[in-house]
Amino acid sequence: MNYKWNKLAVHKEPPQILRTKLQLPIKTLMSPGPTNCSKRVLQSLQNQILGHLHPEFCMLMDEIKEGLQYIFQTNNRLTLALSASGHGGMEACLTNLLEPGETVLIVKSGIWSERAACMANRLGANVKLLETDYTKGITLKELEIALEQHRPVVVFMVHAESSTGVKQPLEDFGVLIHKYNALLIVDVVASLCGEPFFMDSWDIDAAYAGSQKAIGASPGLAPISFSPRAEKKLFERKTKPSSFYWDLTILGNYWKCFGNEDRVYHHTMSATLLYGLREALAEIAEEGLQALWNRHAAAAVRLRKGLELRGLQSYVKIPQYQLSTVISVQLPPGVVDKVVIQRAMEKYKVEISRGLGPTVGKFLRIGLLRVNATPEKVDLVLRGLDEGLKYASESKL
Amino acid sequence: MNYKWNKLAVHKEPPQILRTKLQLPIKTLMSPGPTNCSKRVLQSLQNQILGHLHPEFCMLMDEIKEGLQYIFQTNNRLTLALSASGHGGMEACLTNLLEPGETVLIVKSGIWSERAACMANRLGANVKLLETDYTKGITLKELEIALEQHRPVVVFMVHAESSTGVKQPLEDFGVLIHKYNALLIVDVVASLCGEPFFMDSWDIDAAYAGSQKAIGASPGLAPISFSPRAEKKLFERKTKPSSFYWDLTILGNYWKCFGNEDRVYHHTMSATLLYGLREALAEIAEEGLQALWNRHAAAAVRLRKGLELRGLQSYVKIPQYQLSTVISVQLPPGVVDKVVIQRAMEKYKVEISRGLGPTVGKFLRIGLLRVNATPEKVDLVLRGLDEGLKYASESKL
Repeated sequence: MNYKWNKLAVHKEPPQILRTKLQLPIKTLMSPGPTNCSKRVLQSLQNQILGHLHPEFCMLMDEIKEGLQYIFQTNNRLTLALSASGHGGMEACLTNLLEPGETVLIVKSGIWSERAACMANRLGANVKLLETDYTKGITLKELEIALEQHRPVVVFMVHAESSTGVKQPLEDFGVLIHKYNALLIVDVVASLCGEPFFMDSWDIDAAYAGSQKAIGASPGLAPISFSPRAEKKLFERKTKPSSFYWDLTILGNYWKCFGNEDRVYHHTMSATLLYGLREALAEIAEEGLQALWNRHAAAAVRLRKGLELRGLQSYVKIPQYQLSTVISVQLPPGVVDKVVIQRAMEKYKVEISRGLGPTVGKFLRIGLLRVNATPEKVDLVLRGLDEGLKYASESKL
Repeated sequence: MNYKWNKLAVHKEPPQILRTKLQLPIKTLMSPGPTNCSKRVLQSLQNQILGHLHPEFCMLMDEIKEGLQYIFQTNNRLTLALSASGHGGMEACLTNLLEPGETVLIVKSGIWSERAACMANRLGANVKLLETDYTKGITLKELEIALEQHRPVVVFMVHAESSTGVKQPLEDFGVLIHKYNALLIVDVVASLCGEPFFMDSWDIDAAYAGSQKAIGASPGLAPISFSPRAEKKLFERKTKPSSFYWDLTILGNYWKCFGNEDRVYHHTMSATLLYGLREALAEIAEEGLQALWNRHAAAAVRLRKGLELRGLQSYVKIPQYQLSTVISVQLPPGVVDKVVIQRAMEKYKVEISRGLGPTVGKFLRIGLLRVNATPEKVDLVLRGLDEGLKYASESKL
C-alpha cells in the first residue's frame, strides 16, 4: 500500500534495549511493601483480558466488593477498588471529602501524613497539623484539644505509619470526631489484613489501602470505602471534586454501589489486576481474617524476640503502638544501612528496607506482609540481617 | 494469644461468593478496547513482584521509557507511563497544563472531548468548545477561526475518536497552534501503534495513550509524553497542579526524566503491569512500528471490503477521516444492537461493541487492535456479524 504518510516514515528506530529477553530475579520482599504474591495470585494474572463491562468482569467486581467489605469489616455500600496505587486512595479521599477553603486536621505521624498535607494544600484546603513525636500514637485528649482549636471538617489519620512502625489506636476516635461534626479519613495501606481494623465499629468515614501489602495482590489497585456519613458529604458538596478520575459519585455507579440497575462506564479497569485481587481476597476468605491477623501478630512477636536476642532496638518502644506489619530496627553505631541491605540481598535474596522520614539513616525497616508473615520468612530475614550486619561491621574495619 | 481487640472479634463473616474457583472465558475482543494480549505478554504477568525501586525494576522503567519514545516517535525526555487508565492520562495532561482561569479550546469530536471538557471545568479552566459534525475531522481553517476568537492557552484534540471511528488529521496543527502561543494536547488512546503518529514531527506538546489498545498490554497504564514546550509551562506554573498523583514534575523525577541522578519515590508502580508493557513494547520493537501500522491498515481495508460486500454503511464516509483501529457500522433498520452482539458472542466468542455517544443505538463498533489486527480476526468478526445480523433479523419476524 502507498500511504500518504510515507513522507513521514518512521524516523526513530526501535530501541536496542528492548531486544533482550525479559529475565527477572525472584526475591523475598520483606520491605513494608510491595510483598510477594502467592502462586495462586500470580497464576491468575496470566488469564486472557476481558472487557471492563463483560458479565464475567462485573461478577468479579461484585465478588471483590464483598471481599473488600469483609476486610474493611464494613457494610458500607460505597466500597470499591480504585485503579491507582495507595497514593491514589489518599488523594481520592481528600479530593472527595474536602471543598476549597475547608479545614482539614492532619495528625502528623510520619511521611504519609506529610503527603496528605501536600495533597490537601493543592486542593485549596486550610491545612492544620497536629504534631506528634513520631514514636507513638496520639491520645483522644490530644486530638480533642486540636479539634477544639481548629474545628476541622475532616480529620486525617494514619493507622499504620510505615515510615516508623507506629500503630495509631483508633477505637473511640470516630465517636469523638463526630461530636465535632467532622469526618475521619484513615490510611490503612500498611495495616489492612495485617492488623485488626473495624471500619464500622470504629466509626470511620473513609479508609483506603493498597492491594500490594497485607492484602497480597499485585500493586496497582487501591481499595477504598466510604461510610454513609461520608457519602452524604459527597452528594451535598457545593462544588464538584476537582478530579473526574477520583470522583466517587461516578465510580460508585460503575461499581453499582448506589442500588443503580446498570453500571455506568467510568474508565477501563485492569482485568489483570482484578483477577489477582479477587484471588488474594478469596485466599483471605479461606484463611479467615482473624487467623490472618493472628498470623501477622505471631510473626511480629517472633521477629521482635529475634531482634532482642541480638540486642537490636526497635524505633517504637511502647508495645501498644507497635505494628505487626512494619518493624523499624535501629542500626548499630557506624553501620551504613545500604551495606546491610545489599549484603542481605546478595546472600539470601531477601529484601530489607532503609528508614524513611523520621527513621532514615538510623533504622532499617522490615515488613511482615501476607505470604511473608510466617516463622520461616522471619527466620530468613533475621539470617539476612545477621549476615548484613556482620559484613557491614567487618567492612568498617 | 490474648488480643486486646478480642472484644471486637471479626463480626462480618467471609463472603460465600469468594468460595468458588476463578473460571474465566477466553474471548476474541474486537471492541475498541481493551484488546487481547499475546501469549508472551500474558506469561510475563505471572512473574513474581519486585520492589518499585529495585535495580531490575528501574531497568524496566528505562526500557519502557525508550519503548514509549519509539511508539510516540519522540525524543521528549518527559515520557513515561502513569499508573492509571487512559482517562488518567487525559486528566494528567489537563491538570498539568492548565491553571485555574486559563482558557482551553476543546475540539468536540465525540465522547472523549466531552469528558475532557468535564475535567477542564472541574479544574476551574475557562472551557471553549469547537463544535464539529462528528463524521469528519476539522480543518486548519476551522481551527484558526476558533483560535482567533478564543485565544486559548491549550487546545485539546482527539486523534482517534473511538465513539465514531473518525481520525483527526494532525499534520500542521501544532505549528498553527504555536503561532497562537497555545499548547496542543492530543488523545491518542485509540490510535497509538495502530495509526501513524509523529509527536515530534507534528509539533504536539502532550499526548497520552492507554496500554490496552494497539499497544497490546494489560489495561492499567497510561503512556504519556510532554514536549519541551509543555515541560516549560509545567515548571513555570504560578500554582501547583491540584493533584499530587498526576504531577509530572514529581513523576518525572521517579522516571529519571530530568537528568536527575537518583530516582525520587512518588508512588508504588505495579510490577505486574510493567512486565506486560515491557513485553508488549519489545514485540512492537521486533515487528517494527511501520509494519504494525501497515498491518492495522490492511486489516481495516479487509474489514471495510467485507462490510461493503454486505451492503453495510460506515459512519465515517470520507476515507481520509477513517480510522484503521475503530470502524463504526450502521445497523440495518429495526435491528437491535444488543441482539447482534449477544449472538456473535454466544456463537463465536467474539466481541463487537455497541455505539457510543454519536453512534449509540444506530451503529456497531468494531476494533482492530494489535493482536487482533489480522485477516483471520477480521474474517472471524465478519462471521460473528453475519450470524448476529441473521439472528436479529429472524427474531424480528
